[in-house]
Amino acid sequence: MAKELTTRADDYSQWYNDLILKGELADYSAVRGCMVIKPYGYALWENMQAALDKMFKDTGHQNAYFPLFVPKSLFEAEEKNAEGFAKECAIVTHYRLKTDPDHKGKLMVDPEAKLEEELIVRPTSEAIIWNTYKTWIQSYRDLPILVNQWANVVRWEMRTRLFLRTAEFLWQEGHTAHATKEEAIAEAEQMLNVYADFAENWMAVPVIKGVKSANERFAGAEDTYCIEALMQDGKALQAGTSHFLGQNFAKAFDVKFSDKNNKLDYVWATSWGVSTRLIGGLVMTHSDDQGLVLPPRIAPIQVVIVPIFKGEDQKALLDEKVHALVASFKAAGIRVKYDDSDNQRPGWKFAEYELKGVPVRIAVGPRDLENNQVEIARRDTKEKSSVSMDGLTETVSNLLSEIQSNLLNRATQYRNEHITKADTWDEFVHILDTKAGFVAAHWDGTPETEEKIKELTKATIRCIPLDNVLEAGKCILTGNPSTQRVLFARAY
Amino acid sequence: MAKELTTRADDYSQWYNDLILKGELADYSAVRGCMVIKPYGYALWENMQAALDKMFKDTGHQNAYFPLFVPKSLFEAEEKNAEGFAKECAIVTHYRLKTDPDHKGKLMVDPEAKLEEELIVRPTSEAIIWNTYKTWIQSYRDLPILVNQWANVVRWEMRTRLFLRTAEFLWQEGHTAHATKEEAIAEAEQMLNVYADFAENWMAVPVIKGVKSANERFAGAEDTYCIEALMQDGKALQAGTSHFLGQNFAKAFDVKFSDKNNKLDYVWATSWGVSTRLIGGLVMTHSDDQGLVLPPRIAPIQVVIVPIFKGEDQKALLDEKVHALVASFKAAGIRVKYDDSDNQRPGWKFAEYELKGVPVRIAVGPRDLENNQVEIARRDTKEKSSVSMDGLTETVSNLLSEIQSNLLNRATQYRNEHITKADTWDEFVHILDTKAGFVAAHWDGTPETEEKIKELTKATIRCIPLDNVLEAGKCILTGNPSTQRVLFARAY
Repeated sequence: MAKELTTRADDYSQWYNDLILKGELADYSAVRGCMVIKPYGYALWENMQAALDKMFKDTGHQNAYFPLFVPKSLFEAEEKNAEGFAKECAIVTHYRLKTDPDHKGKLMVDPEAKLEEELIVRPTSEAIIWNTYKTWIQSYRDLPILVNQWANVVRWEMRTRLFLRTAEFLWQEGHTAHATKEEAIAEAEQMLNVYADFAENWMAVPVIKGVKSANERFAGAEDTYCIEALMQDGKALQAGTSHFLGQNFAKAFDVKFSDKNNKLDYVWATSWGVSTRLIGGLVMTHSDDQGLVLPPRIAPIQVVIVPIFKGEDQKALLDEKVHALVASFKAAGIRVKYDDSDNQRPGWKFAEYELKGVPVRIAVGPRDLENNQVEIARRDTKEKSSVSMDGLTETVSNLLSEIQSNLLNRATQYRNEHITKADTWDEFVHILDTKAGFVAAHWDGTPETEEKIKELTKATIRCIPLDNVLEAGKCILTGNPSTQRVLFARAY
Repeated sequence: MAKELTTRADDYSQWYNDLILKGELADYSAVRGCMVIKPYGYALWENMQAALDKMFKDTGHQNAYFPLFVPKSLFEAEEKNAEGFAKECAIVTHYRLKTDPDHKGKLMVDPEAKLEEELIVRPTSEAIIWNTYKTWIQSYRDLPILVNQWANVVRWEMRTRLFLRTAEFLWQEGHTAHATKEEAIAEAEQMLNVYADFAENWMAVPVIKGVKSANERFAGAEDTYCIEALMQDGKALQAGTSHFLGQNFAKAFDVKFSDKNNKLDYVWATSWGVSTRLIGGLVMTHSDDQGLVLPPRIAPIQVVIVPIFKGEDQKALLDEKVHALVASFKAAGIRVKYDDSDNQRPGWKFAEYELKGVPVRIAVGPRDLENNQVEIARRDTKEKSSVSMDGLTETVSNLLSEIQSNLLNRATQYRNEHITKADTWDEFVHILDTKAGFVAAHWDGTPETEEKIKELTKATIRCIPLDNVLEAGKCILTGNPSTQRVLFARAY
């Protein structure tokens, strides 16, 4: 029997959870808000990591690793950053357990092993890193520093969702140091473009590049650039951010450099990150009521081959042919799995790989062998066709490319159809409540208005698109003059 | 001026620290006992990870990720394991900071945000993983589970050393679940062989495969297999361990499976790990008074090319030739760096890359161009020679292989010369105090004797070699009968 899935129409939120759990991407854990990333989900993350890591290195970055813990005195040094994360910090206060004298076989925190200074489990690493950069940077010759870190971070969120918002998550965080403001801004913009390139060309998730309003800015940043994606329920998802940090952290940690003229100045900074949250966005962009739909370029399994047979003789015939196919696929760089396990019937396997979002399924039986063909089913459109075994590797390779493009096109079309202009408050609310998606509307530029709109509608400004056209208008809420539309949406 | 290094003869311990810090592998951090792994050190770790990860996958393992935190009640479930790590645990007790009313701009732990149950920052993940496996395993069909995790762990050690012993370190931990005892033991042995293969063939570090005595066993294991290496100061270093855990964790977390006959039994387990500690062992195996010596297979830079020139015209001529060389090297899979920076003289660069342990240095100047040759210096022997540019890629590729072999041979010869038999207590102590290295001696098999020997000499039993020959003898301390020699050493 196939695993039962909730449909999107029935309960979107439950559908999402079903896909993550039954598709075996992740599991709940015994720790509040923390998840277990299962092997299939982790293989997906590894493919995403590999692609991103190469893009980072191709743009001149190197990886490094900084401590998990941030001493409280460092954590609080950049006040805005500290304030932004203070309410969601896991805090280490003791360094030893001891036998509990009152409960046999149990342990208790040893009150004598209290730390002199509490340690914050990093929610982000600007503080510990800039405290380190202070010792690395003296002169302009030490700049730029272009460093990235793959790490786990902890943010003690009250409401958590698998992948989308978890207390611990995996991410990368780039932290760069520059001699000039212009160079730092160029770096922040470059990494935004890297993220957009990755989202669109690897994940097949179309994104809008923009800049955040002050309310939504990263705590401690001068400017936060972001890529925003749109989910199938019309809610937006922030998929990655790149921050121009100005000299805020350099000032907080007293990081100065001497320039070519021996003049001292504070160092300019950026930071940028994407996380396992991307997997949540990926799932909600492409998947359907039958399960996950994964883009070929990052799918752990790109092609699954299911044999259809009765008895050992038929199996032996199929094996011979399929092993040759598998070898040919692998030589072409295709990630292929031959599922010849005998504990499930083909129909069960079909449903299982559909649920797991494997882009291409090949079924082959004795009659196919006679006709020198196989049956190919593509996951994105569910189309099936009989295809010749001759040149099958090339056929499949082309099909994978076609599926990758189709997913991006389909998602882009959906996204474009869900950017709607609103010129009155009633229109604005109506769109949010019915069609949803991004609403392009005028805003008077004040944090107060943005806050008020959020209170009234739960919609926030997702971004001011980088390619925005200036256009005179009136704020959707206050009627005050505005120079451009911004994108509002309800968001994850 | 080249960076000054302490020599091994002057102060071995300071020599080691100098190499790590000045060779830019790692740096101290603001957090007690935690280090920063710098880009050069991290690149080395990435190469080691890539090789190990492939070996794990080739033996059927998949990666996954489990939570950083272990609730105290799970942590204490397997009592021996809990007892073994209780004294070195970082403990999270609170989840929020708040503004300190008495100190403007400062934060304090919010006493109202105390966790109901304390969370242990994982020192190892058996507890959280076996609590998860409980939900994954019902039947023999769910076995084996062959999972590995790349992660950070924290052990609050009192005395720390860069790489060798740090409060936080990076590692991989394999956690497997099996239907039979035999299969679990075979897995533990297989992974020991993988580690030995990696140590010898990638790190060029010869190791002795053995099993630990009860005193040195992993807390919660039935048997701990290990690979032991020997450092240049005659101290041993445990380089990796693989544990047969029996049914201890399955019993602690009540993980049972039904076999083919529907009979319920507890699941059998292994765990195995290597860490960034390996980098410390690598440094102390090969390096010399001029700096690091890195084996080509894992060196971040295998070949550095230093141009020798006066003026732009000479530089342009060299550039043209070297760019072609670099392209040819890269095409052959050689990690090459062309250091044409103009802020340091060639002599400084020579010393710098020697310090950093780059296996092959190529110097090329205008006269070399005329003679169609370059000067090659190998880091391991410091030999220099003039070599024809014709077929240079192949020459260098062969040289890298030769250096790799030479490092392993050299270290193996040193190691073999430092395994000494002792038949009397005086001999035993004399060897430890003068020649050092491994001492092969008879032991009566009791924990008490091992403990007493440790008290008297600081030497511990590093392992009982797997290929040990049985031989009747008398315990070095007690004179009681013994059936085989075991390897003692002072150790890191």
